[in-house]
Amino acid sequence: MSDIRILTEDQLRQRVHLDATAIDVIENAFATLSKGGVVMPPILSMHMPDVNGELDVKTAYVPGLPGFAVKLSPGFFDNPGKGLPSTSGLMVVLSTETGRVQAVLLDNGYLTDVRTAAAGGVAARHLSRADASRAAIFGAGLQARMQLQALALVRPIQEAVIWARDPQKAEALASDMTRDHGMVVRAEADPEKAASFADVIVTTTPASQPILRAEWLRPGQHITAMGSDQSGKNELDPHCLDRASLYVADRVSQTKLMGELRAALNAGLLSDSDPIPELGDIITGRHSGRTSPDQITIADLTGTGVQDTAIATHALAAFSHEI
Amino acid sequence: MSDIRILTEDQLRQRVHLDATAIDVIENAFATLSKGGVVMPPILSMHMPDVNGELDVKTAYVPGLPGFAVKLSPGFFDNPGKGLPSTSGLMVVLSTETGRVQAVLLDNGYLTDVRTAAAGGVAARHLSRADASRAAIFGAGLQARMQLQALALVRPIQEAVIWARDPQKAEALASDMTRDHGMVVRAEADPEKAASFADVIVTTTPASQPILRAEWLRPGQHITAMGSDQSGKNELDPHCLDRASLYVADRVSQTKLMGELRAALNAGLLSDSDPIPELGDIITGRHSGRTSPDQITIADLTGTGVQDTAIATHALAAFSHEI
Repeated sequence: MSDIRILTEDQLRQRVHLDATAIDVIENAFATLSKGGVVMPPILSMHMPDVNGELDVKTAYVPGLPGFAVKLSPGFFDNPGKGLPSTSGLMVVLSTETGRVQAVLLDNGYLTDVRTAAAGGVAARHLSRADASRAAIFGAGLQARMQLQALALVRPIQEAVIWARDPQKAEALASDMTRDHGMVVRAEADPEKAASFADVIVTTTPASQPILRAEWLRPGQHITAMGSDQSGKNELDPHCLDRASLYVADRVSQTKLMGELRAALNAGLLSDSDPIPELGDIITGRHSGRTSPDQITIADLTGTGVQDTAIATHALAAFSHEI
Repeated sequence: MSDIRILTEDQLRQRVHLDATAIDVIENAFATLSKGGVVMPPILSMHMPDVNGELDVKTAYVPGLPGFAVKLSPGFFDNPGKGLPSTSGLMVVLSTETGRVQAVLLDNGYLTDVRTAAAGGVAARHLSRADASRAAIFGAGLQARMQLQALALVRPIQEAVIWARDPQKAEALASDMTRDHGMVVRAEADPEKAASFADVIVTTTPASQPILRAEWLRPGQHITAMGSDQSGKNELDPHCLDRASLYVADRVSQTKLMGELRAALNAGLLSDSDPIPELGDIITGRHSGRTSPDQITIADLTGTGVQDTAIATHALAAFSHEI
């Protein structure tokens, strides 16, 4: 056991933060994915209807990194009634040289929160207008908060609005963010007004019916949809993809199955053979990305194993001087 | 961290053994699988040719058990040159009530060794003749040893032969087993003689070309093939399945992809629509199993997530009085 590092959620929270470095780490992960050599198998997904639970397992091998992470993400949806968060889990880091377990990161999903928000930052950095100063966040949960923080790390965000199905939660998040982050953040009860206000829109909900209509969009906007990570979820009216000049997936093979792309394909608005760039292709310059300030761009983020391996490696490095 | 149990390989080796209880635990797991309600997703498999490594992740939800295991099994085939075993890994046990991590079993594959050998015992108990006293083991690795031990727990084994590609390894294992287990065990250089000698044959090799010919089989034998767990492996001449009165899979959906069934289907000796019983069906009596002492029976074991959840639960129970 002596050579296996066990890190608790508390330890990880002290050393790993949603900051510019975390965004760079995730940006680099997507770039590596685009360059090739990464092995990222389909997600193992287990549904346990008996107990209203599910488990996702993600992993990716990234050439050049000393380890690869395997992440277990359970979601147990009766937990809130028991005073527990729905999601938890851990990451195991294995050596790319020997496969031996190097570390167990008992993060209860914290590193996933960070890498997921960081991906939103990466998407905004590469797809939104450089002068984007107004944000709209759909949803009022933890990712709503963290996605707004991530935006502020990459764009000169001055003002933000929060729309949520529960207006009280939107109000509470808006006042928290205003107090803690020096932005002007307010709740907006009308989703159309929230959408038309913003240069960057981030949807962070578990919606199974679209919450953002295509007719609300205006030229120059960037939308990141990050709430959908299951085949039953859908945040964007599929016509949003049709209206956008550019649709970018974190991983096409995943967004086809569980992202916004799924609904657009089902609606016949896109075909399976349309070439779709991935976020890494924009980062590496293989795809030109946004080419005019008036374009509408969409990033569809479902969460990838390569982000897990990247954030786990980053987390372990933060403790390396103690080994 | 206080509520997460971390157990090391040493601790697990002290309390969990290949014994009658372990065989009962695995028998019960297969029976539960047959009765329904178990959720067992396809194996997540990641190949890393860059580093001559692979990773398998298995899991299963078993109704009624307090936890479910997720097992990470890495195989890194350059390890022996570094003085390390090829395989290692761990199991994580999550609560079936909340999904929270209950335990991390840093077993380096030990629990897999036990549950794999136990499945061989279960197969022999339900498929071989009750008077089976002579065993032939193909292969001379750790599972060769453990499969013979498992046979001796369920059948009155008096004599055994070992055949292996490397005769020295066969000799070494034979003398170890004779010394340690009070059986008469000898190496047999001729695989045909080894096969015809035995009432029960267990193949435990990573062979990619058949090592057991159909014409070597004789009435009354039971064969367990447990070496194949990848689509490139194949231990039994596909005609063995044709000759046998009864072919039983641990899990049909797996043996089709990575067991001996795959080669037989490819050879056109069986069709995808032929009904195939699973080991659990024999245990529960849903399938009659062997109905005459002269039948030839085959069990095809690829290793299932339900065994992992069962052995992990069994292991945790062995430490429960200390919690």
